[in-house]
Amino acid sequence: MATLPITERTKISRAAKKGDYTEETIYSILDEGLFCHVSYVERETPMCIPTGYGRIGNKLYIHGSVGSHFMRAIADGRTVCLSVSLIDGLVLARSAFSHSVNYRSVVMFAKGTVVTDETERWDSLIAITEQFIPGRWDNVRLPTKSEMQKTMIISFPLEEASAKTRSGQPNDDEEDYDFPVWAGVLPLKLQAQTPITDPKMQFDLPVPEYISKLVVNEF
Amino acid sequence: MATLPITERTKISRAAKKGDYTEETIYSILDEGLFCHVSYVERETPMCIPTGYGRIGNKLYIHGSVGSHFMRAIADGRTVCLSVSLIDGLVLARSAFSHSVNYRSVVMFAKGTVVTDETERWDSLIAITEQFIPGRWDNVRLPTKSEMQKTMIISFPLEEASAKTRSGQPNDDEEDYDFPVWAGVLPLKLQAQTPITDPKMQFDLPVPEYISKLVVNEF
Repeated sequence: MATLPITERTKISRAAKKGDYTEETIYSILDEGLFCHVSYVERETPMCIPTGYGRIGNKLYIHGSVGSHFMRAIADGRTVCLSVSLIDGLVLARSAFSHSVNYRSVVMFAKGTVVTDETERWDSLIAITEQFIPGRWDNVRLPTKSEMQKTMIISFPLEEASAKTRSGQPNDDEEDYDFPVWAGVLPLKLQAQTPITDPKMQFDLPVPEYISKLVVNEF
Repeated sequence: MATLPITERTKISRAAKKGDYTEETIYSILDEGLFCHVSYVERETPMCIPTGYGRIGNKLYIHGSVGSHFMRAIADGRTVCLSVSLIDGLVLARSAFSHSVNYRSVVMFAKGTVVTDETERWDSLIAITEQFIPGRWDNVRLPTKSEMQKTMIISFPLEEASAKTRSGQPNDDEEDYDFPVWAGVLPLKLQAQTPITDPKMQFDLPVPEYISKLVVNEF
């Protein structure tokens, strides 16, 4: 896979060695995230909204209601900043100053395009649904024509983006290593818990395998 | 606790019933989050950076290096948008269209002020550290004068903010309830995993109780 060009906006200035511009790293972070923060400028004010997304190739897709103020704002071709942040752990150093976080994040800049091609629209909805829970799309009642008409889909080219990551143990000052405190990493993970069946279910169906397999130490 | 005034920027337009302007809800979401996304405008471009934070009363604090371009940008009094998003679960409906997410999010707008009072600076660092891991501050090597000089702290008044939340089961269309698919909620939680001791530790110390108690089904 390719490496994206470094622009003035995506160049990592602080801790430059944590920067990564390869599609491999950027795509892997995007593919693991469940939601992104979309930032845009509205009357000179920054706005930042969390929302789901999906990726197909070098395009990121966002969907929403055709009546959404947010969707209409980011559909008009202005530059938006999309940010996906995965938190992997707390870095518990000996000094307060050296505490840190292990994370993997992507920041991208792009202008949105309203998707009009019906095949691309359909495929992007599959991508957005499967981003949340792989296997779900094939098992649910698919969108009707009327639902499709209520849905706006915007694509963003993945051309100007950078990843920033930190992993591993604390980097304490040399003289702090003889400070007598436990030091290390407390890993964090967004984990699925026991599914809660909708009490309105009219059928006695088990939790599907593509859901139950996401739950650690259950079933 | 009070309710914040609804402004043009914080008014929830889509799904207005999910909006909440009470300090009680806003503070509880902020106190549970581990990081926020800070959006600001730089040469007419939206920028969005994830970072840690802490809260004391009706102020949110962010810290960083005095040399950080990001910190200097948001320190100059321009309006920033801070966003904290907690994801609580996937809402797995019968129709693809009715799929949703259970979440609790806060969006706030504020202008930053560089904190200069040394007591407030110190207290804000405690708040930022304790936001990550309560109990840590009292056990580590505290900041030196030199480290304090390298640290910039910016406060943001919590005066213009709104929360938006969703919880509970899917809201499918009436006619979809006889579609034979498992429906319900898959709860998600950011969970601490087994701590990884720094191999550079020079002492044989156990994982402190204030850390081990965060780990579910361990110890």
